[in-house]
Amino acid sequence: MKRRAVVLLSGGLDSATTLAIARQRGFAPHTLSFDYGQRHRCELDAARRVATRLNSVEHKLVRIDLRAIGGSALTEEIAVPKDRPLDAGIPVTYVPARNTIFLSIALAWAEVLGSQDIFIGVNALDYSGYPDCRPGYLKAFQVMADQATQAGAEGRQRLTVHAPLIDMGKAEIIRQGVGLGVDYALTHSCYDPGADCGPCGRCDSCRLRRAGFREAGLVDPLAYPAETR
Amino acid sequence: MKRRAVVLLSGGLDSATTLAIARQRGFAPHTLSFDYGQRHRCELDAARRVATRLNSVEHKLVRIDLRAIGGSALTEEIAVPKDRPLDAGIPVTYVPARNTIFLSIALAWAEVLGSQDIFIGVNALDYSGYPDCRPGYLKAFQVMADQATQAGAEGRQRLTVHAPLIDMGKAEIIRQGVGLGVDYALTHSCYDPGADCGPCGRCDSCRLRRAGFREAGLVDPLAYPAETR
Repeated sequence: MKRRAVVLLSGGLDSATTLAIARQRGFAPHTLSFDYGQRHRCELDAARRVATRLNSVEHKLVRIDLRAIGGSALTEEIAVPKDRPLDAGIPVTYVPARNTIFLSIALAWAEVLGSQDIFIGVNALDYSGYPDCRPGYLKAFQVMADQATQAGAEGRQRLTVHAPLIDMGKAEIIRQGVGLGVDYALTHSCYDPGADCGPCGRCDSCRLRRAGFREAGLVDPLAYPAETR
Repeated sequence: MKRRAVVLLSGGLDSATTLAIARQRGFAPHTLSFDYGQRHRCELDAARRVATRLNSVEHKLVRIDLRAIGGSALTEEIAVPKDRPLDAGIPVTYVPARNTIFLSIALAWAEVLGSQDIFIGVNALDYSGYPDCRPGYLKAFQVMADQATQAGAEGRQRLTVHAPLIDMGKAEIIRQGVGLGVDYALTHSCYDPGADCGPCGRCDSCRLRRAGFREAGLVDPLAYPAETR
């Protein structure tokens, strides 16, 4: 029997690629998405499509109301920045402790599943801006997790947080995903999509994605507004 | 201005005492409760009463559906054990990674508030059964948290997880709380209450509480079923 893994799946390009890598490494992936009070549901729909296409054993959506906590343009009525310099420090789209919260819930599910493996799609481009995307953070989470669980406390298990994209740039991630058969038309990256979930083309996330496809010499299957091309 | 602290408040005896201690230590307490799919709402009502009585600056209730994850008698239709030996290992009322999830959300709120202090009411009696109530776990959480947040990553802050009850027995906690003016009639401890939120008197939580009051030589203000006295 394949070893079970919990794979965090946002519906974006990175987590879809991470799911494909988990499968390739021989894990039976159980995918986990969060309805955390995002301003739009486009990425939740994308996550479900990606989970189905890439044969997730079970896709779970957990509701958690992070709007009650506040502090981010992704959950509050703060304007999503457009066309800002990408090296301008931690952006307002940062959600406080988001990866810690998501990994904690993944840890709970892993414990129920008897799994010792969690996959998360954080990558090198992220950790210029987001503190909880750095290798030192992921390592510290592992150490904490082994203290937190029944199996860890009894010394029967040791959690591994897999971050296969951590050292990759966007172009490399895209090339790898295409090689593994990921259909990026199913994914959603935009922080500020239109009513039809079409990408704005100008937020940080759209711009990183488009630059990645350009650098990889591949065509992004999403349709961006003409004036942003 | 007083330093802000986030205080996890379940509505039980331990967290009410912890809130009183946070105030005594000079913090401005911001209390946090979770609606995580408990089988009853009695403890959420108790938390609100306790927060009001002990002058919480702001009381927040965050919804998170841990039933979707499963694995515990507190969120699933598994019978709550009655009259079991209290040293019989990790009980079925253990919720996987619960303290990690709760501390993670407290961390998010602390970051929004600019607070570096989280209070949690775990204690010595708990950590015989629950892995995430041990001092080693709390220390590992602190280390992880300092890697996770914007302020921690920039070296501007260092989180402290205060667990003032960690080395106390129930009787000592109760004596301390009574000395600080905690009204334990407002608290709720039972895992399996009646329709009126009255305690069953026989679950682990009721029995630890009753034994604590007895040992402290004090009267528990709650009314237990006559046949369990």
